[in-house]
Amino acid sequence: MISVSKRGLSLPSSPIRKLKPYADAAVAKGLNVHYLNIGQPDIETPAPMLKKLKELDTKIIAYGPSQGLKEYQDVLVRYYQKHNIELSTSDIIVTTGGSEAIIMAFTVCLDKGDEVILPEPFYTNYNGFAAATGVILKPLTTTIEDDWELPTAEEIEASITSKTKAIMICNPNNPTGKVYNAEALLKLAKIAKKHNLYLFSDEVYREFIFSGEKHSSLLDFEGYEENVVMMDSISKRFSACGARIGALVSRNKDVMKAALAYGQARLCPPTLDQMMAVASEEIGDEYFVKMLAEYKGRRDTVVEALEKMDNVIYQVPDGAFYIVMKLPVENAEDFVIWLLSDFSIDGETVMLAPAEGFYATPGLGRSEARIAFVLDVEKTKRAMHIISEGLKKYLSL
Amino acid sequence: MISVSKRGLSLPSSPIRKLKPYADAAVAKGLNVHYLNIGQPDIETPAPMLKKLKELDTKIIAYGPSQGLKEYQDVLVRYYQKHNIELSTSDIIVTTGGSEAIIMAFTVCLDKGDEVILPEPFYTNYNGFAAATGVILKPLTTTIEDDWELPTAEEIEASITSKTKAIMICNPNNPTGKVYNAEALLKLAKIAKKHNLYLFSDEVYREFIFSGEKHSSLLDFEGYEENVVMMDSISKRFSACGARIGALVSRNKDVMKAALAYGQARLCPPTLDQMMAVASEEIGDEYFVKMLAEYKGRRDTVVEALEKMDNVIYQVPDGAFYIVMKLPVENAEDFVIWLLSDFSIDGETVMLAPAEGFYATPGLGRSEARIAFVLDVEKTKRAMHIISEGLKKYLSL
Repeated sequence: MISVSKRGLSLPSSPIRKLKPYADAAVAKGLNVHYLNIGQPDIETPAPMLKKLKELDTKIIAYGPSQGLKEYQDVLVRYYQKHNIELSTSDIIVTTGGSEAIIMAFTVCLDKGDEVILPEPFYTNYNGFAAATGVILKPLTTTIEDDWELPTAEEIEASITSKTKAIMICNPNNPTGKVYNAEALLKLAKIAKKHNLYLFSDEVYREFIFSGEKHSSLLDFEGYEENVVMMDSISKRFSACGARIGALVSRNKDVMKAALAYGQARLCPPTLDQMMAVASEEIGDEYFVKMLAEYKGRRDTVVEALEKMDNVIYQVPDGAFYIVMKLPVENAEDFVIWLLSDFSIDGETVMLAPAEGFYATPGLGRSEARIAFVLDVEKTKRAMHIISEGLKKYLSL
Repeated sequence: MISVSKRGLSLPSSPIRKLKPYADAAVAKGLNVHYLNIGQPDIETPAPMLKKLKELDTKIIAYGPSQGLKEYQDVLVRYYQKHNIELSTSDIIVTTGGSEAIIMAFTVCLDKGDEVILPEPFYTNYNGFAAATGVILKPLTTTIEDDWELPTAEEIEASITSKTKAIMICNPNNPTGKVYNAEALLKLAKIAKKHNLYLFSDEVYREFIFSGEKHSSLLDFEGYEENVVMMDSISKRFSACGARIGALVSRNKDVMKAALAYGQARLCPPTLDQMMAVASEEIGDEYFVKMLAEYKGRRDTVVEALEKMDNVIYQVPDGAFYIVMKLPVENAEDFVIWLLSDFSIDGETVMLAPAEGFYATPGLGRSEARIAFVLDVEKTKRAMHIISEGLKKYLSL
């Protein structure tokens, strides 16, 4: 019998997607399911991008350069400039989604067995990338009660071992919605520099900040050019998750050289999707103003509903489009499955993401669930009503 | 100083792309360069696919399923059926190009340090995928003089060690154009089964056979379901290299389960490009008849020219769109650079791929170069004239 590799066996199946059969069964029963479980926005991809796609008169869908189309790299340079981040095209490799940027970074910066420190809860797919590349994720627990604040510098340093090669952060954070300010980031940067570590920065939610505060990037700080490797994506920003266009960004020339070699092996990121992404430059600021107002409305709708629920603990998220809530239940996954299988109001029910999958420490997050507020205010209201009434009923059983 | 990982440092820079600066310099001098160095066909992407792209009325470019859009998986099931390969959708994961299919297979079937036996010369990017995933490629040398025939079963078995986990083959072959028949493949399959090895089969050139012979797939044989993992791509077949749509195909359920877990981590292959690929089903057989006739014409043009050149050794390729020729020079790379830098006829010159990069055994292939016959007959004629005259001049220096 021929067997799958050790790393193949260690690949986690997606904790978010594993509940899909329950949702499918609900749909099969004729229920309308509100999907608040994944970060697939319902916002239309901006018109200039869709228009560009229609107008493409490419006759041959050919390979582009491994580092990305020059035209799109230039768009990215100007995009980051707007965010006060000065880069040259050689600091940027266009990737197949933010996903590939993370795989690339793990591959070229880390070897098998190397450790990455990161706050938990964290984006669950980091587990898959780590398993695929043999990297070990070492969680620093943050808690809902402490507003998801990072541990102190001393605590973080105490978790560094001889195997530690990187600190990773997602800002704004998925799944907590936490926005780390410059001070918090600088704390990480100083630790990374002191201990000679990479700083992986997942900034795909850059624009999603509700407080009006400017986004702080780890690329903002001088003196950390060797440490910082940033992963980015147009997926959320331009509601183009299926385009699979991301970027690996670093001023570390050795990292970029190795990443380009990786990039050359896989030839290039998707050509048409890059051409479409070029048109993102035509999107005016009013798009973001409108989008943010929309998401803020959704967040406020979620928070208003949570406020009225008994014994549900949460923090108002300042960023991204997620919130983690602690429910007065032993096992949030059971509740999520029960909602799909046994509860509905007016033919509607809700799918949430149990939060345990966002934690690496066994047992943590078991009573928590993540809401992705990716549906309009009206639907969000109905969904929250279902969650609220469902919870009462569930607790009464 | 923070350093790139060992595997990051081991990633080879592309031997094909490294000569690009010489080509760019030639273009900058005003020369018209015929690019016979990479497998980027000049054939138009079929009209139904381009049309589909124009007609897409997607408003949100959303994530698709990790295993690929159901509609496209179904197209693939019917496509393979036409080639007498019976599959179900669960045997297929749509990937981001053939490249990702190879990375997935290496990741889920093999661990760091595991060895893969494969005939050399081989597709040079296998080196990059192997370095990224920590896999060791062990070459079985095949030679131009022996018509690129595989070694005997005894020779192949003699190269198997305790670390050997797979045999890999590309059929039709890049870079040699060799087509392996059922007998040759069955020889490999039996060895794989006897020694409990995976059989990786890169079949992206399936349609490119000039002899009229039917393509033999490793999926054709019964009893090897656990062993065979096939990698495929629409890049060459439908001249859509930039679409980045490939597939990982296997009847081994454990492999597919692990591959799906990998697939879920990276979310999904590009959505639009899959929608476009769905339209490949509308392409009639006359497309392949015409395309094959075109490539056959190009091959014949190349071969006619080579026949007239002194001391150039080659075999007439039966498949793919490549030929490796042995030149009467010590170092083919020098000749390739010289053509770009110091030779032209009527303002035109040629770029070839030195073949040394296709060999893993040091020193082999140094006097060989690969021609990708991806330009029309007229241009191919002119290009071959330049190579022929260039070689005479180069040898006289």
